Amino acid sequence: MADIADKISAMGLVLPSGPVMPAGVVLPFPPVLVRGNRVFVSGHGPQDNDGTLAGPFGQVGVDVTVDEGYVLARKTALSILGSLERELGDLDRITAWCSIFGMVNCAAGFGAQPAVINGFTDLIIEVFGKKVGAHTRSAVGMASLPFAIAVEIEAELLIDG
Amino acid sequence: MADIADKISAMGLVLPSGPVMPAGVVLPFPPVLVRGNRVFVSGHGPQDNDGTLAGPFGQVGVDVTVDEGYVLARKTALSILGSLERELGDLDRITAWCSIFGMVNCAAGFGAQPAVINGFTDLIIEVFGKKVGAHTRSAVGMASLPFAIAVEIEAELLIDG
Amino acid sequence: MADIADKISAMGLVLPSGPVMPAGVVLPFPPVLVRGNRVFVSGHGPQDNDGTLAGPFGQVGVDVTVDEGYVLARKTALSILGSLERELGDLDRITAWCSIFGMVNCAAGFGAQPAVINGFTDLIIEVFGKKVGAHTRSAVGMASLPFAIAVEIEAELLIDG
Repeated sequence: MADIADKISAMGLVLPSGPVMPAGVVLPFPPVLVRGNRVFVSGHGPQDNDGTLAGPFGQVGVDVTVDEGYVLARKTALSILGSLERELGDLDRITAWCSIFGMVNCAAGFGAQPAVINGFTDLIIEVFGKKVGAHTRSAVGMASLPFAIAVEIEAELLIDG
Repeated sequence: MADIADKISAMGLVLPSGPVMPAGVVLPFPPVLVRGNRVFVSGHGPQDNDGTLAGPFGQVGVDVTVDEGYVLARKTALSILGSLERELGDLDRITAWCSIFGMVNCAAGFGAQPAVINGFTDLIIEVFGKKVGAHTRSAVGMASLPFAIAVEIEAELLIDG
Repeated sequence: MADIADKISAMGLVLPSGPVMPAGVVLPFPPVLVRGNRVFVSGHGPQDNDGTLAGPFGQVGVDVTVDEGYVLARKTALSILGSLERELGDLDRITAWCSIFGMVNCAAGFGAQPAVINGFTDLIIEVFGKKVGAHTRSAVGMASLPFAIAVEIEAELLIDG
């Protein structure tokens, strides 16, 4: 069983522990919320394995390269998978990804948001396959993101009813 | 009954009247739309009790303090509750909050969006309790918002089928 | 039948062909995804009839006028209708629009996002009528959008189950 967890291990990936926020930060909402068969995922940023927010920080295109942004989007996927595993118990309960909203911290004139958010999409498709993992998305430029993270992603999925 | 309306009154809060837009502004869409048991809420800004958009206006971190932003997010929650009451007739029909998208008008480098949007989340949890009121969210920085409002929030909820 | 397609033709409108992306751009996700009776639409930009992204490009309020932005939002509606027709086969399968997220590429201080996104909403209401076409929305300002497009819109709809 635990096909998805096995797949993640086989890929040499590790899901980070729960988010460790900067001192004084209160987040009065759940990272993942199940309502019926729908699974809502709060905006997540990239985490290092100890749960702290992962850098480099700042704007992609200024402080962070597109390639680094791709890696941060991949880390954001792992961060979300960690939250999903803690909430659902088993990632195999996921029957379908629906849509994600991919946010890139960047300045006016930056236009490579899709190349950054591909770090997320590529990982999810590799882990879940195209049938379950396919999702619609936007990949767009934000004026700023919390704690100067360079990438933030929110999502909606389905589990068995 | 009217438990939620009673709770709002007991907290000394008043829901603002319908939105009063600046002259010439046409909004050809509903503030709230029910599709089956799903309730979609258009992006709302903070309102004063007479329905006009509430200030201070501009960017949080520049023109508006984080504490003022918190109050504006709280006023945005009341604005949304007013729209929900007008559409649903009775706020007790709400069985679950799902997710919200919290938008803060701010400049590059601002990172306290979560502290601003907590003004919304804290109020909803206080009014609806954790079971019904819990919601996922993102709290992020926008380049600009309509009419220079400092906070805008959209949401999805559920009612009985 | 094909009532909606007939209506579009009668209005003198043409749905653009599939998106033609700039060289080297990989979009590893579907423009439209059906999950049960829910239809998710990825962020779309304005297209010309040959499928290429439509200008003018850049920030509304700086490089693009509000009236031009309105036309771009209208073209974005046609772009989305094209994707929906390719995925669903028949636009008459759409039973309800739910919500859209309207993104305008603009600078700090710009506040006419609703007037821009009305180009989308007005077209959808004209084509589908108020009962099916009504949708909630936000219309907000982004720091930047992919490939310097001036408008991007994502959406959720329903089809018969």
